[in-house]
Amino acid sequence: MSIMTRSAAELRSELAVIRPARDEVDPAELVAAALLGFAAEPGDGVLGRLIAALGAVEAAEALLSDEADAASLVERVTAAGDALDEREATAGLERWRPRLDHALFVRSLTQAARVGARLLVPRDRLWPRGVDELAQHAPITLWVRGRPEALVEAPAVALVGARAATAYGEHVALESAAGLVDRGFTVVSGGAYGIDGMAHRSAIASHGTTVAFLAGGVDRFYPLGHESLLTRIADTGAVVSELACGAAPTKWRFLQRNRLIAAASDATVVLEAGMRSGSLNTAGHAAALGRPLGAVPGPVTSPASAGCHRLLREYDAVCVVDAAQMAELSAVGATDRPRADASPSEAGEGAAHSTPPESEPSPEGLRVLDAMSTRSPRSVDDIARRAGLPATTVMGVLAVLDIDDIVRFRGNGWVRRRSA
Amino acid sequence: MSIMTRSAAELRSELAVIRPARDEVDPAELVAAALLGFAAEPGDGVLGRLIAALGAVEAAEALLSDEADAASLVERVTAAGDALDEREATAGLERWRPRLDHALFVRSLTQAARVGARLLVPRDRLWPRGVDELAQHAPITLWVRGRPEALVEAPAVALVGARAATAYGEHVALESAAGLVDRGFTVVSGGAYGIDGMAHRSAIASHGTTVAFLAGGVDRFYPLGHESLLTRIADTGAVVSELACGAAPTKWRFLQRNRLIAAASDATVVLEAGMRSGSLNTAGHAAALGRPLGAVPGPVTSPASAGCHRLLREYDAVCVVDAAQMAELSAVGATDRPRADASPSEAGEGAAHSTPPESEPSPEGLRVLDAMSTRSPRSVDDIARRAGLPATTVMGVLAVLDIDDIVRFRGNGWVRRRSA
Repeated sequence: MSIMTRSAAELRSELAVIRPARDEVDPAELVAAALLGFAAEPGDGVLGRLIAALGAVEAAEALLSDEADAASLVERVTAAGDALDEREATAGLERWRPRLDHALFVRSLTQAARVGARLLVPRDRLWPRGVDELAQHAPITLWVRGRPEALVEAPAVALVGARAATAYGEHVALESAAGLVDRGFTVVSGGAYGIDGMAHRSAIASHGTTVAFLAGGVDRFYPLGHESLLTRIADTGAVVSELACGAAPTKWRFLQRNRLIAAASDATVVLEAGMRSGSLNTAGHAAALGRPLGAVPGPVTSPASAGCHRLLREYDAVCVVDAAQMAELSAVGATDRPRADASPSEAGEGAAHSTPPESEPSPEGLRVLDAMSTRSPRSVDDIARRAGLPATTVMGVLAVLDIDDIVRFRGNGWVRRRSA
Repeated sequence: MSIMTRSAAELRSELAVIRPARDEVDPAELVAAALLGFAAEPGDGVLGRLIAALGAVEAAEALLSDEADAASLVERVTAAGDALDEREATAGLERWRPRLDHALFVRSLTQAARVGARLLVPRDRLWPRGVDELAQHAPITLWVRGRPEALVEAPAVALVGARAATAYGEHVALESAAGLVDRGFTVVSGGAYGIDGMAHRSAIASHGTTVAFLAGGVDRFYPLGHESLLTRIADTGAVVSELACGAAPTKWRFLQRNRLIAAASDATVVLEAGMRSGSLNTAGHAAALGRPLGAVPGPVTSPASAGCHRLLREYDAVCVVDAAQMAELSAVGATDRPRADASPSEAGEGAAHSTPPESEPSPEGLRVLDAMSTRSPRSVDDIARRAGLPATTVMGVLAVLDIDDIVRFRGNGWVRRRSA
């Protein structure tokens, strides 16, 4: 039976199985956010704008209504003083409707309750404000196993790196996480093998707090070999995902998970990464958000450090060699960003760049693409000149287009992919 | 017998023992430059301005004249449409006169002739134009053993680093020099043990051209253990010094030698350097001249790479991992700098910053010092803000003040030394 036939008010009965992080949030909002988060892929910008215009409760009502069609969505958004393109609304409904399945939604909530996962929504004061800078691409919900407080109680540095870590990289991860814990920081990472795992382990061993963001539901710890590590992380820190329980990790979700690691941290540091490491994507998100980005150098003879050197060379990452410098990096960022207690709308406006991971490039994305060639690699500065945009903006846009496989770095510069 | 009692015209008889690099330069100018270079320490800005105003021949005549005093020097410079402070002129005469010893001058020229050293002066078309960007601190002469053409025939990259090199640093030096030679570059360095020596050796082994700048006269190769290496450098490349034969290397001369390495090269790359390596001084000169500066990263666990990481972090050095990136770095610089065939005055004006190594700080130096504290370390950005100067200017000025021991880097920022 599809929940399409039920009203949002009736859905409140599902609330019985939702365990909120705190009791202060309106139950209707909790269930609406849970439903919307369940229906959409991470970073769905159209749904983000719908929620920004109508609020989660009205947005959920609108989708559940029997008469829900693109025209009615556009009408509601216009009435709220905002704008939505009818084609976007049509495409959105086509994405969301197949997921509005009552049985699956209830099963997901039940599974969340079984593993003790708690629900965080943007109005909650335990909500990590940094993610609001993702604007329309901010998460709708966060499911947390462990202590949701771990997301807000201390400044956080993301320590990320390759799964294929060397002994050098693991040594750096161990020292960095321990040193940051000593300085009162929470260590954020992605729970993966290699650098991520070592950073989490070292933080725990130093009696610090560590947070792992997953690319699938928190009911199933991934990777399997880190089940006991993730359980220990949840004991004192938090294991977090924007995806509902039951959601499997996919490539897209890994890339979107990376945006949360960057957005939830005051600074991101890549400890060891080869040229194709996923941690460079996290670094790209940090750069796109205008957040401090650090990279730890390594021997130039080690391919495992080549990605870090590329960040230093092309992304203007700061060279950091120890935890003291990582802490300093994070302090630099803190003064530039909106305060943690800023309202979501302020925070959204304060963001230097938003991250548009849709297939439709932003206006800036179009200008950058127009300034690029499919054959001649061009430097960031060259593209910036041709596009009439600041180099930092171009770097951010390129990072996002790179994620979408629309551009790529070749030889000494950036090219547009032919297929794009 | 002092040459103070002889006229410049009489001195031309000394020319018999001077072997010019080429015959196209006026003999009077050759002997005048040789005399002035003999009388002054490297980088003497007052003498530099005297020569700029009067030309080498008239400047030498002025110093040799029986009536030479500060007032007459100021008068001559004023007549030439320039300005010289009487106190500066007095101090200059006190520095130069004790060195105007005829017997010692002739002995130095004779020694140069014996080792086959050739004299280059600024009007010579084999003069490396890059050093003219040092403006009043440009060298007055260059003594060359080997092929003076090596200074101008190809683009040059300076490869420098610590004497206390590790196997990693030596490997990087070997690969970098060989790769640059393969790309048609001349490798410039300082002839020292460790990184410098390996860069020279690798360039020779690759059948490339390499140039060593010494801090003392080219009649005596220093360090002694590199006598055979320096002989081999002179066989195909050049061993160069602005100091006359017989001059011993001193600490000041090493620091001034470093400015020539940076100024004579299209880019400077520090391959491996600890926190106190003299190669950081060369890097400071490159930065002060606005020349491309690269640093090769290494393991953060190696103190031998800490200086390179400091350059990446604080001096905005470009992270370079191989010869291709070093070649690219040099190309970036070439477009920004005055052309090699620009006239000396144009080149001087085109320089982004001049390097004032005198004890009397420049006007910018005074503004930077005023913006600093002896107790609280301040960042470059902080100093730039307080001084109302661009951060790049402040970096250049600090590099120079650091050489003069007027400022130092402590903890997380720069402080003025108490004694200064």
